[in-house]
Amino acid sequence: METGKVILDATLRDGGLVNNHNFDDSFVKSLYEANIASGIDYMEFGYRADPSVFSRSEYGKWKFSTDEDIWNVVGQKQSRLKVSVMADVGRCNYKRDIADKSNSPVDLFRVATYIDQLQEAIQMIEYIYQRGYKVTCNIMAISKCDEKQRRAAVTMLKKLPLEAIYIVDSYGALYPSDIRNITLEYMESLADTEINVGIHAHNNQQLAFANTIESIQSGASWIDATAAGMGRGAGNCFMELLIGYLKNCNYDIVPILEFVNSKMDSLKKNDMVWGYNSYYMLTGLANVHPRSAISATRGYEKTIKSFLEEISY
Amino acid sequence: METGKVILDATLRDGGLVNNHNFDDSFVKSLYEANIASGIDYMEFGYRADPSVFSRSEYGKWKFSTDEDIWNVVGQKQSRLKVSVMADVGRCNYKRDIADKSNSPVDLFRVATYIDQLQEAIQMIEYIYQRGYKVTCNIMAISKCDEKQRRAAVTMLKKLPLEAIYIVDSYGALYPSDIRNITLEYMESLADTEINVGIHAHNNQQLAFANTIESIQSGASWIDATAAGMGRGAGNCFMELLIGYLKNCNYDIVPILEFVNSKMDSLKKNDMVWGYNSYYMLTGLANVHPRSAISATRGYEKTIKSFLEEISY
Repeated sequence: METGKVILDATLRDGGLVNNHNFDDSFVKSLYEANIASGIDYMEFGYRADPSVFSRSEYGKWKFSTDEDIWNVVGQKQSRLKVSVMADVGRCNYKRDIADKSNSPVDLFRVATYIDQLQEAIQMIEYIYQRGYKVTCNIMAISKCDEKQRRAAVTMLKKLPLEAIYIVDSYGALYPSDIRNITLEYMESLADTEINVGIHAHNNQQLAFANTIESIQSGASWIDATAAGMGRGAGNCFMELLIGYLKNCNYDIVPILEFVNSKMDSLKKNDMVWGYNSYYMLTGLANVHPRSAISATRGYEKTIKSFLEEISY
Repeated sequence: METGKVILDATLRDGGLVNNHNFDDSFVKSLYEANIASGIDYMEFGYRADPSVFSRSEYGKWKFSTDEDIWNVVGQKQSRLKVSVMADVGRCNYKRDIADKSNSPVDLFRVATYIDQLQEAIQMIEYIYQRGYKVTCNIMAISKCDEKQRRAAVTMLKKLPLEAIYIVDSYGALYPSDIRNITLEYMESLADTEINVGIHAHNNQQLAFANTIESIQSGASWIDATAAGMGRGAGNCFMELLIGYLKNCNYDIVPILEFVNSKMDSLKKNDMVWGYNSYYMLTGLANVHPRSAISATRGYEKTIKSFLEEISY
């Protein structure tokens, strides 16, 4: 890479967790064009979820992200913007649904796994790599793992032909000092490999951008962000903040800002709810999944005291 | 201090820049009680501005914060919560409006100054100290000063009987690495004095909390925050995030969260606008005063391109 960094736009994928991956086609096309114009490296086209696990009537097409649906957006795919898709361990029928690379618009599959699913993740990674794709491994909820577990996981994964291993702070529970320590630990463990370190942050404590910066400064080079920070619950690192930070790195902030201005702001007005609030802060502090905060945010029916009891904080 | 830290709630003062300091009395009383219950160290009761500079018909009472108005809130003042008031150089007729401490509820005046007003600030500090108050000096827009200017300023100020010298990132332009460098520089310069380092951050790039943490870790001990981050433009460090971070430091997050839940959320619904958006991010990146972003936010009439031209970014 020219910049030494790989910026990945995860708006459709993590943002899709806000609206069951029901984006209209013009939104997706505009995002694709904005990413090209900004010089973003990868755009993630949702999940390749198993339709027998998630119903097609309930979820939009970017939950399943078929090659055909992606081709319909990227056309001849003549830009340098690459395509990634996420595949969750246990939720993707990869032997059936991931065919050989030759006719696929997908460049990269990102295998998302909890640490206790690592054996299955490894099988998936090997299978997908053998089909001809680049692969990363994204270990979710890393704030629930101690150093010993993290080191054991990276030791197992580093033997694989991975592009990157991602630090995924699913619960938005980590502080910059934690992120620094974990990034340095991964960097050290992977120093004798070609595998890069990636960062995917959540904004429960308004630290998604700060944690992303911290990880970059500690060596991470594969960086996730989303337009206007759209993502599950409190959302992710804002792409426009990240591009603003990466001055002189050949990214252009203007197309992203125009996309946010024209598309994301109206999405917010149409009842799409994401972003920081007190409930998300508390699940971050308590280091738990944000589902209780998502529910409290939808209804705003909970007092702070009853919510604190619910999450045992 | 038990915790070694001094937490100052600046909601009325910096938040007052959102609503011309027109808070109703029940809001102020509730905030006062929440601060006491949470164990906050100082509550700032607005500015002591000169009524011949700011009209009393246009601005609420916390723009002028008379002793009488403060007494009406704090009553017998039997808690350990101390009272501060901000006095801006050039906007406070201090010789007329700051009387001797003996009959005043104010414990601390914070003298806010731009770096080119330092001579006048020093006169103010000396005058106010001689009246019997504690005093801090808050050098605003520090992102506009280079190291030489900062060092010269601190060298002049360190001879004064100050409680603290504050790093004030008025434009929300600084990254955590900048904050670390400036904090360490102040700490070094003040090592042979009793003067503490303070931090006051703005959220233009969603870094107010992260920059506050960074400054604390580098030695700052006087820390500003506001309920729900209410403050000029993009706002400040959220008090609830700060208290959540300061675990085991004898602060209680619950009263602040309940105050945010019951009072701040409804304030936001009543057309009080503060908090991050793309315009504030851009004034932060451009290292300029947020006034153009405040105006764009009020009207939402500007395209991103015309706004970029306006701020010459």
